[in-house]
Amino acid sequence: MIADLRELQRRTGDADGAQRLCWGAQWRVAREYLQELLDEIGLEATRDAAGNLWAFLEGEREPALAVGSHIDSVPNGGWLDGAYGVMAGLGLLRAWARSGRRSPRTLALVDFADEEGARFGRSLFGSSAVAGTLDIQEVQALTDAGGRSIVQVLAENGVELARVGEAAAGLEHIGAYLELHIEQGPVLAREGLQAAAVTGCAGVERLRFGFIGQAAHAGTTPMNVRHDAGLAAATAALEVERIPTAHGGVATTGELELQPGIATAVAGEAWLSVDLRHPDPAALELMLAGARRACAEAAASRECRLEEIAIWRIEPIAFDPQLVELAAGAIADTTGIEKRMTSGALHDAAELARVVPATMIFSPSIAGISHARAENTDDADLAVAIAAFDALASAVMMTE
Amino acid sequence: MIADLRELQRRTGDADGAQRLCWGAQWRVAREYLQELLDEIGLEATRDAAGNLWAFLEGEREPALAVGSHIDSVPNGGWLDGAYGVMAGLGLLRAWARSGRRSPRTLALVDFADEEGARFGRSLFGSSAVAGTLDIQEVQALTDAGGRSIVQVLAENGVELARVGEAAAGLEHIGAYLELHIEQGPVLAREGLQAAAVTGCAGVERLRFGFIGQAAHAGTTPMNVRHDAGLAAATAALEVERIPTAHGGVATTGELELQPGIATAVAGEAWLSVDLRHPDPAALELMLAGARRACAEAAASRECRLEEIAIWRIEPIAFDPQLVELAAGAIADTTGIEKRMTSGALHDAAELARVVPATMIFSPSIAGISHARAENTDDADLAVAIAAFDALASAVMMTE
Repeated sequence: MIADLRELQRRTGDADGAQRLCWGAQWRVAREYLQELLDEIGLEATRDAAGNLWAFLEGEREPALAVGSHIDSVPNGGWLDGAYGVMAGLGLLRAWARSGRRSPRTLALVDFADEEGARFGRSLFGSSAVAGTLDIQEVQALTDAGGRSIVQVLAENGVELARVGEAAAGLEHIGAYLELHIEQGPVLAREGLQAAAVTGCAGVERLRFGFIGQAAHAGTTPMNVRHDAGLAAATAALEVERIPTAHGGVATTGELELQPGIATAVAGEAWLSVDLRHPDPAALELMLAGARRACAEAAASRECRLEEIAIWRIEPIAFDPQLVELAAGAIADTTGIEKRMTSGALHDAAELARVVPATMIFSPSIAGISHARAENTDDADLAVAIAAFDALASAVMMTE
Repeated sequence: MIADLRELQRRTGDADGAQRLCWGAQWRVAREYLQELLDEIGLEATRDAAGNLWAFLEGEREPALAVGSHIDSVPNGGWLDGAYGVMAGLGLLRAWARSGRRSPRTLALVDFADEEGARFGRSLFGSSAVAGTLDIQEVQALTDAGGRSIVQVLAENGVELARVGEAAAGLEHIGAYLELHIEQGPVLAREGLQAAAVTGCAGVERLRFGFIGQAAHAGTTPMNVRHDAGLAAATAALEVERIPTAHGGVATTGELELQPGIATAVAGEAWLSVDLRHPDPAALELMLAGARRACAEAAASRECRLEEIAIWRIEPIAFDPQLVELAAGAIADTTGIEKRMTSGALHDAAELARVVPATMIFSPSIAGISHARAENTDDADLAVAIAAFDALASAVMMTE
């Protein structure tokens, strides 16, 4: 499977990293390679109404256990993000196909379309269509950086946006979903662990706060008459950073834009993004209240007006407790250490978990790097996690 | 003179404000209007090698007392900035020309070219050429936002960049320089004063500090392993704001750019501008040391690397003490209140003060606003300051 991943990168990557941008030429090349690998074991892939790729290996019982992830990448992305889980799933089907035995359950490989949302800004596209949470009204006006409509680009890939909801019909064949993925963070690498069972995905509250002060001449405006919006935002950002100390979770202020934004003027406006994540809904609500309070106080202390714009939010999603137990057990058996963690990033499993039992296994990311060419994991760690994933799949197929 | 200013704005402004961008069509219209007004009193304007406009009214003695400012404006600028001092100077020549008497000294009206530097980023162009401080090497590669070369644009206006230094020869005819200008800040308006004598221009230290941390995923990177460059810059900005509390002056951090600058990533780089101004060289030096210390500490506390880029600096410039005394006296006589202040903004007088005795008078700016259509001063305040300026000019002409 690691060889398959390297071949995929050879075919679809370049010196800057993985280039499997969804709905583009290299993404189609990646899927052709997937079909080549499926051909070797006599399986035909089908596409659902949302552009997700499915391949079924018939087993003793239905409904199927679905395994997979997404083969699309961000531009200049890493070789493992998404592709790792797809190739692990394909490897599982291949092993059973070559075993000469029927698997205890039907296995379904799935490659979800446009998990990254790198082109139109709507991530989890294919998996949310399957889960029934994709609102067509919200996405139909989206365009890419070149001004091309999502409707048109999807049509070129054989997907009719108005009908993507029909992908949910595929759920009737699926009993559970398992996904192997890299952590995309530094926790496992820092703890020296080879794999973890994922208990769920953190919820996200993402907003933009506007501090409206008064632009003024840097040379002629005394300090005591200023309403510096940039410094109000700076104060707010530093307070937002303290929120996880009280409530856990993570809080990030990665975007700050000043107006007029020149060295010779006091900033009259400042727009600060606030991204809050927590696996517990009540704690996430407290974080949001804390961020609003911090921004309001910072604005008031400089007599700035405060505006708030919602960007995006998603409820925390807990994975199926029984599957998490099985995953933790498989990891303990394979690596010798039982590790559970929450995912701070979102994954297709977060959408699938709304409608079928689901869980994930994480592999460490060296230095926590992902969405970059430097994304990597030791081959030995990949192999161990694949073994744990296979053991988990076997255990799940054996359960009712 | 106020009527002249309104006519100038009618001819060269629009609904967005003054549009006398130097070296452009509306600036040339403004100068044609100046020539019309000079024609009425029988004076011919000449241009020096730097594109400065000069008109001499012969008096009893030489060298001349020069009066003026700049008629160019920023785009969407105010009706008074620069034009006010030019029209006040022209009014002074006109009053003497129509008096039937010769002035005690020759009077020279000067309209300096490109004080604002709004097109090529080099302010005080014409006055620094006269003062001998314009380094042609530093400006010859400048281009405007449309990519046009300063050399070419100047040539279209009859100015050969290689020869602008010859403008300094005009100094031999000039004994002193007086400039009337709006304050462009809120001090006089807040104190309810009608005019002030200007004691000099603050020096400026302008730098950009780069905080180099580590970009990271907002969801997967625990708070305690982050090296958030944006928060390092925020901490530094808030410390820089405190510097004037200890040393006086003003400190501004008007520009802050985060990389990658998106809501879902911890900022890996942050670039913060620091603009420090103080009329006293020793205090300005202490401010600079304080800013460097604040940035270094903020960077170190988050294990970020610090970079420093010099943008621009200018020494504080004190105006001629005798002329400042005369200006303060004229203001006390005219308004009833003697007020002196330092200019936090730069003016042509700052360049002239290097080579001849010079001072300025300020009029209040309503709400401190300038470089904007809303820039304004009550007519009564303009008239009082013009009277004080005329009285100052008379006093200067009477001194040896």
